[in-house]
Amino acid sequence: MDEHLLIQKYFSNIGSAFLAEHNVEVSVGDDASVIAAKNNTHQINSIDTSIEGVHFIKDMSPSDIAYRSCVVALSDLAACGARPKWFSIALTIPELKESWIKEYSEGLIEFSEEYKIPLVGGDTTKGTLSITVQVMGEVDSGKAILRSSAKEDHLIFVSGTIGDAYLGLRECNGTSGENKNRSSYLRPKAKIDLGLELVDIASAAIDVSDGLLQDMNLICQASNIGAEIFLEKIPTSLSEKSIELINSGDDYELCFTAEEEKYEKIMNISKKLNIQIVNIGKTTSSQELVLFDYSNNKIQFNSGYKHF
Amino acid sequence: MDEHLLIQKYFSNIGSAFLAEHNVEVSVGDDASVIAAKNNTHQINSIDTSIEGVHFIKDMSPSDIAYRSCVVALSDLAACGARPKWFSIALTIPELKESWIKEYSEGLIEFSEEYKIPLVGGDTTKGTLSITVQVMGEVDSGKAILRSSAKEDHLIFVSGTIGDAYLGLRECNGTSGENKNRSSYLRPKAKIDLGLELVDIASAAIDVSDGLLQDMNLICQASNIGAEIFLEKIPTSLSEKSIELINSGDDYELCFTAEEEKYEKIMNISKKLNIQIVNIGKTTSSQELVLFDYSNNKIQFNSGYKHF
Repeated sequence: MDEHLLIQKYFSNIGSAFLAEHNVEVSVGDDASVIAAKNNTHQINSIDTSIEGVHFIKDMSPSDIAYRSCVVALSDLAACGARPKWFSIALTIPELKESWIKEYSEGLIEFSEEYKIPLVGGDTTKGTLSITVQVMGEVDSGKAILRSSAKEDHLIFVSGTIGDAYLGLRECNGTSGENKNRSSYLRPKAKIDLGLELVDIASAAIDVSDGLLQDMNLICQASNIGAEIFLEKIPTSLSEKSIELINSGDDYELCFTAEEEKYEKIMNISKKLNIQIVNIGKTTSSQELVLFDYSNNKIQFNSGYKHF
Repeated sequence: MDEHLLIQKYFSNIGSAFLAEHNVEVSVGDDASVIAAKNNTHQINSIDTSIEGVHFIKDMSPSDIAYRSCVVALSDLAACGARPKWFSIALTIPELKESWIKEYSEGLIEFSEEYKIPLVGGDTTKGTLSITVQVMGEVDSGKAILRSSAKEDHLIFVSGTIGDAYLGLRECNGTSGENKNRSSYLRPKAKIDLGLELVDIASAAIDVSDGLLQDMNLICQASNIGAEIFLEKIPTSLSEKSIELINSGDDYELCFTAEEEKYEKIMNISKKLNIQIVNIGKTTSSQELVLFDYSNNKIQFNSGYKHF
């Protein structure tokens, strides 16, 4: 059974009898949880684990590891259109070496200052290097952008360029002669400003962490729709758009849907934030994600990053 | 450098410029963070990692592992006098085996039903078995019981019996012929009801996770006071009160301080909840924690569980 199904089967209903009394609006299954909080706001909570050899490479500096693992968690809040509020960290390390901790804390400080949120707590334990980051954000009540609210015949957009982090990872691993994409992998950005602009514009959104097609497919499943995506429209920095490249994950760009009439507004957001936003296809009623090549033939694709 | 100092040095000040604007009342350094939320309440957030071979033993059932790792996290909320609200889980597992996930989810359900809180989100990753649990609770504004508010000449109390979990762990490991304490280790209880009663009564509180003396010492350090504790007064289920036993951790009882005039009220709480609460000493101005033996001689003691 695949991961998403397994989680849905065993984890989507735990304590659901208590959701209402605790003002939980959205629980397991979206980018983040939505909990009604102070007057007219909802809190947005997300938690993400980054593990050495899986989510970051062994040679990365402690400061890059810290920064990256925090952005990866915060990216879920961007996809919800949330204002970041605070974060906490559970750090597991093999040994308590001051130089490592110091460098690590420097990455946290950079993250904290960039997104203007405080670290409010955490836990430190001994074991294989692993970092769990919890982030809390806020939206005006009812304004969270969910995965489940896309409709058919909406346009599908993606921000930035897809595959840069994959190229960066290859550079970091030394399997590429180049050096220009390293920061795309080491220092991704959570698209918070874009998410905030997309409130009341996007009908659904997700951050591209496991692969554009796989992540868009999660919107399709949650919204009970299908999608048609055109390979040639997907923005990459390589002229040759291989499926491996565009479905490689780690970019933390936003993939979102919107009614056709919102197109102008979205292009204005693109200009205002100086972020490339491209229409790559549209949603359908088919409940299937279909990818078309340059000749408008359907192509098979793998399903992006597999966690297990 | 020891763990607490290292954390204080590198983590206690990250993003502190943004604490006020995000309504964070208590940040790094207490059992949990305190964030002002909806009208007249503060949210109480805590995160804790449990690792195989460190926080739980290899032979434990997935359901016991799930239950125990959640209670361990929730126990911090008990020490703050908080009402539990919800929890989220970051689970790292070597393989996605349905039977294991199923049993694991059963432990989560038991926890969820016992404390009447929903699981609202999480993350699943591949790696060495490790569970990070985030719990959120709530108190009326300003009512959180902190570590830092003990004063000198307050009485020191502890709930339950100390060392039962240690005996239980020995039974689980098969190094003891007995069987009666296993559940004290496998299925600890978060003392939520007691914590709620202690609001406006206790001047400071902590949950006993790493060892009674070490944990009480954290109250002393945070409150800038000392303590005198009497070995013979510490409640254990063994007649012989070895220091190893009383400072072994894992009991998740509450250790707290209170003004002498609150003694009657505390004994009434003990009766009402049917929880043994014992006065084991008092706080002093000395900034040192001193342990006395049966003949009132000071005794040396080790400092409880070392995380590294």
